[in-house]
Amino acid sequence: METPIRIGIVGYGNLGKGVEYAIRQNKDMELVAVFTRRDPSTIQASVPAVDIRDAHTYTDRIDVMILCGGSATDLPEQGPQLVELFHTVDSFDTHARIPEYFDSVNHVAEASGHIGVISTGWDPGLFSLNRLLFQSILPEGNEYTFWGRGVSQGHSDAIRRIEGVKHGVQYTIPSEEAVAQVRRGDNPTLTTRDKHLRECFVVAEEGADQARIEEEIKTMPNYFADYNTIVHFISEEELREKHSEMPHGGLVFRSGVTGEGTKQIMEFGLNLGSNPEFTSSVLVAYARAAFRLAQKGEKGARTVFDIPFGLLSPKSAAELRKKLL
Amino acid sequence: METPIRIGIVGYGNLGKGVEYAIRQNKDMELVAVFTRRDPSTIQASVPAVDIRDAHTYTDRIDVMILCGGSATDLPEQGPQLVELFHTVDSFDTHARIPEYFDSVNHVAEASGHIGVISTGWDPGLFSLNRLLFQSILPEGNEYTFWGRGVSQGHSDAIRRIEGVKHGVQYTIPSEEAVAQVRRGDNPTLTTRDKHLRECFVVAEEGADQARIEEEIKTMPNYFADYNTIVHFISEEELREKHSEMPHGGLVFRSGVTGEGTKQIMEFGLNLGSNPEFTSSVLVAYARAAFRLAQKGEKGARTVFDIPFGLLSPKSAAELRKKLL
Repeated sequence: METPIRIGIVGYGNLGKGVEYAIRQNKDMELVAVFTRRDPSTIQASVPAVDIRDAHTYTDRIDVMILCGGSATDLPEQGPQLVELFHTVDSFDTHARIPEYFDSVNHVAEASGHIGVISTGWDPGLFSLNRLLFQSILPEGNEYTFWGRGVSQGHSDAIRRIEGVKHGVQYTIPSEEAVAQVRRGDNPTLTTRDKHLRECFVVAEEGADQARIEEEIKTMPNYFADYNTIVHFISEEELREKHSEMPHGGLVFRSGVTGEGTKQIMEFGLNLGSNPEFTSSVLVAYARAAFRLAQKGEKGARTVFDIPFGLLSPKSAAELRKKLL
Repeated sequence: METPIRIGIVGYGNLGKGVEYAIRQNKDMELVAVFTRRDPSTIQASVPAVDIRDAHTYTDRIDVMILCGGSATDLPEQGPQLVELFHTVDSFDTHARIPEYFDSVNHVAEASGHIGVISTGWDPGLFSLNRLLFQSILPEGNEYTFWGRGVSQGHSDAIRRIEGVKHGVQYTIPSEEAVAQVRRGDNPTLTTRDKHLRECFVVAEEGADQARIEEEIKTMPNYFADYNTIVHFISEEELREKHSEMPHGGLVFRSGVTGEGTKQIMEFGLNLGSNPEFTSSVLVAYARAAFRLAQKGEKGARTVFDIPFGLLSPKSAAELRKKLL
C-alpha cells in the first residue's frame, strides 16, 4: 500500500460529516483534520478540529482539502484562498456563476501550482457529465431531466410560511407516467404539471383550518399552482419519525435518433437515501483524481468534464483495463 | 468553423454503415473514404470505396480511421497496422483479450506518434465507464447488470440448429420484477433465472412437430435450460416484418451504502433501436476525442477510462462549463 492521500475537510455540516464517513470507505485515504470557522472546541469529529485561520500551518500535512461550505458566500471566498495552499475539491453549485468561479480558482491555482476541482457532486456533476455524454453520442434528440423523489428545501420553507402551519416537508416526485413515456421513446412534450408531482406533509397548529391551509398551498403561485399537489396533515411525531431524512435523486434521459429515424434512449438515474452523503462520496472520489492530476504535474482549475474516470478509482489503469473494461 | 476532422471507415458492414450515418449528424467531421477487403467496385457508399491495401496512400487526407471490423480476427491484425499510419478508434470487445490488444496497439502507436482508442462502444465502453464510476463513488455495494431487451445472435443460432426450425430470433429480456427489486434497493440475490427471460420467435418447417421444438428449446443446456423461456411460432412474413431489427440495451446498477447504512442507488440504462448504429455513434464521438488528444501532442493506446468527457463534444471547454455544468 502506498502512503494514503491526506485529506482535510473545510466546514463540518452535513456535507463535511458525509466526507468523514466516505473516507472510511476508501482505504487509500486518511482524514487529517476538520477546519472550521466555529469554535473548534465545539466540534465533535473523529480527527482534530482546527480554526480555519490556521489552515496554512497544515500545508505539509494535507494533500487535498475538501471544501464543504455553501456556494452563496463560503466557496467564492474559500475556494481561491485554499487553492493557494492545497489541492481542493468543492461542490460549487450556483450554475450561473460557474464560469466566474472557475476563473477565480484557476487564476490562483495556476500561480500556486495546485489543482482545484470545482462543481462536483451530482448536479452540477454526474448529471452534467451524462448530459454531455448523451448529447455527444446522440446529437439529434431531446433531453429530459426529472427530479426526485426528494425534499425541496425551498418548497418546504414556503409551506411553513403559511398561517397555521407548524411544520412541513415537501417532496418533489417525478410523474411515473411521464417517465414511462420518455423511457419507451414517445418523445413527449411535457408541461411542468406533467413532469412532477408535489407531495406535502404538514403539521397544522391546533385548531387551524386545514381546508384553508390545503387551498393556500395548492394555489401558491410559482411554488405549487403549476403542479398537481397532494397535501397530507400528520402529527408532529410522524413528521419527525418519517420525514427527517434528506432523500433526493433524479433521472436524466436522452431520447435520440440515429440512421434513418432509429430510436435510441440513454438514461442515468440516482435514487439517494441521503443527498448530502452521496454528494460527499462524489467529492471524495474527485479528491483522489485531484491528487493524481497533481502527481502528473498538472495545475489549475478543473471540472468533471476535464477528468477521466480512470483517475477516480484507487485501481491502476492496467487493473481497470483487465477487470472493468 | 474550423477544418473538419477527416474520417476514414475500415470495414463497411452494419457498424461501418452506422458510422457513415453518424458522421452526417456531426458537422465538425467529414467522411473521406471507406476501406474494404472486398472488391471496392461492389461497395455502394456515399464516398469512394478503396482497397484496404491502399490505405497508406491516404495518410495526408485522413485524420482518424474508425475500425469497424470484428474482434475475432480483423481487429487484432488491423488495429496495430492502421495505428502505424493514422489515429484510430475501434470497438474491440473480446473482454479477456483487452490487455493484450491494448499492449499491441500501444506499442505501435507510441512509436508512430498516433492515438489508438480501443474498446469503445457500450460494453465494453459506456457500461464499463459506469461500473467504474459507480464503484469509485460507492465502494461498498452490489453491482447488477441486466441485458436487453435485445437480440442474442448466439441464442438465435442455437434455435436455428434444431430440426424442423426454418428461422428463429431470440430476445433476451430483463425481468421487470428483478429490475424493480434492484431499483428500490432490496439488494436481492438473483439467480440466472431471476434476472432474464428468453423470448423466441420461431418459424417452423411445414409439418414439423411444434411441441417437440418448443421442448427442445426450453431444455437446451447452457442456452435455455436455466431460464424461463417463452416460445412463439410465427410465419416467415411476420418474422421478416417484425423481427429483422437489431435492438439491444441493458441496465447497470450499483446499490450501495454510505454513512451508517444509508441506501444509495445509481443506474445507467440504454434502450437501443439498433445496437450497431448506437455503437457507431459512440465510435464517432471517441474519434473526435482521439483527434483532440493528438492535437495536444499525446500518443499511444487509450481506453474510455483515460478520456475526459469534455473531449467527446464539439463544444469548447468554456462553452461546456457555461452551458452544461
